[in-house]
Amino acid sequence: MTKPVPRFISLEGGEGAGKSTLIRGLSDFFAGRGLPLLQTREPGGTALGDGLRALLLDPSQPPIHAEAELLMMFASRAQLVRDVIRPALAAGQWVLCDRYVDASFAYQGAGRGQPEARIEALREWVCGSTMPTLTLLLDVPVSLGRQRAAGRGPADRIEAEGDGFFERVRQIYRQRAADDPQRFRILDASAPPQEVLAQALAAIEPLLTAVRA
Amino acid sequence: MTKPVPRFISLEGGEGAGKSTLIRGLSDFFAGRGLPLLQTREPGGTALGDGLRALLLDPSQPPIHAEAELLMMFASRAQLVRDVIRPALAAGQWVLCDRYVDASFAYQGAGRGQPEARIEALREWVCGSTMPTLTLLLDVPVSLGRQRAAGRGPADRIEAEGDGFFERVRQIYRQRAADDPQRFRILDASAPPQEVLAQALAAIEPLLTAVRA
Repeated sequence: MTKPVPRFISLEGGEGAGKSTLIRGLSDFFAGRGLPLLQTREPGGTALGDGLRALLLDPSQPPIHAEAELLMMFASRAQLVRDVIRPALAAGQWVLCDRYVDASFAYQGAGRGQPEARIEALREWVCGSTMPTLTLLLDVPVSLGRQRAAGRGPADRIEAEGDGFFERVRQIYRQRAADDPQRFRILDASAPPQEVLAQALAAIEPLLTAVRA
Repeated sequence: MTKPVPRFISLEGGEGAGKSTLIRGLSDFFAGRGLPLLQTREPGGTALGDGLRALLLDPSQPPIHAEAELLMMFASRAQLVRDVIRPALAAGQWVLCDRYVDASFAYQGAGRGQPEARIEALREWVCGSTMPTLTLLLDVPVSLGRQRAAGRGPADRIEAEGDGFFERVRQIYRQRAADDPQRFRILDASAPPQEVLAQALAAIEPLLTAVRA
């Protein structure tokens, strides 16, 4: 396995898992401790990535083939890793990324049927050793997540998928967490936001000590 | 090797090689023979591909990392192969594509240093057996090509590269042609347009017979 980078935290989870709320809470926590935090997201986080994101999520466009979607996700990631994540880590910042490579295994792999070996080959090439120390998986039943997300306005192209798609996404996220318990923490995202934040902070606190040590 | 598709012709060549002029000539030739021709280009040829092309060539944007550029080229290609090239071939049309997968070996491989094995893995995955029967390589000395291209207005992000880049592109194109003489025909693109067209038609005529037979 590749060596994790000490200050790199990724957040994963399906629709309506409460990632945005948690990110605000974590952002406040890092600010309160005076720790420099770079917060970014996928797809996006760079000018190129934002352009790719707009193409990927536009519900008015013809369907994007799974191969093209996977390659675009990794193109956005290649640019983000090189222009944002690696420089931030090199400068001693903490990095909090709203979705990272596990999302490709979940959405383009389990969701759209792209083979895991292909995604792993892309991961090795594009991310190399730039892997999170900690991945917080906000796990929530699909029905509850979609119910929460429904309040947000029109669905983008991926949000518009059916329940079967999101069940597969959830299952592969849980499977990846079970396969790599050292990197992953599963948070019960059906709990109230303050409890989810407390679970996240319990996972993050040991990293702060590790980095100080 | 993968089996070539009978009616699929790709055009390759550096800047100012005269591809657009040749395409007009070939288009007239196919029309004159009453042969259905689908003409497309890379990157582009689909709504998604045109969006990717705009991102790839925009000279006002920050530099795109070679990994991201290669993945975007193959994302555009994945969509084009599935939405345009395969359906056209299945419907009995001829397909003339302005650049195809050899361009990735030339521009992202030789030009930007991405490993050939990586590009070949992407080719196998994205294109599979959808490979041209005939690839016309418009070969022209870099200095002459750039002199011709200079008359066209502002350079895009790739056209703005230096001579060393385009020398590497030309060499790998010639190398690939030498390695696969059955698929490639090298055209002397420093000749006048009518002569280049005659060279191209001499390469295409046998295909017409083969398809009729």
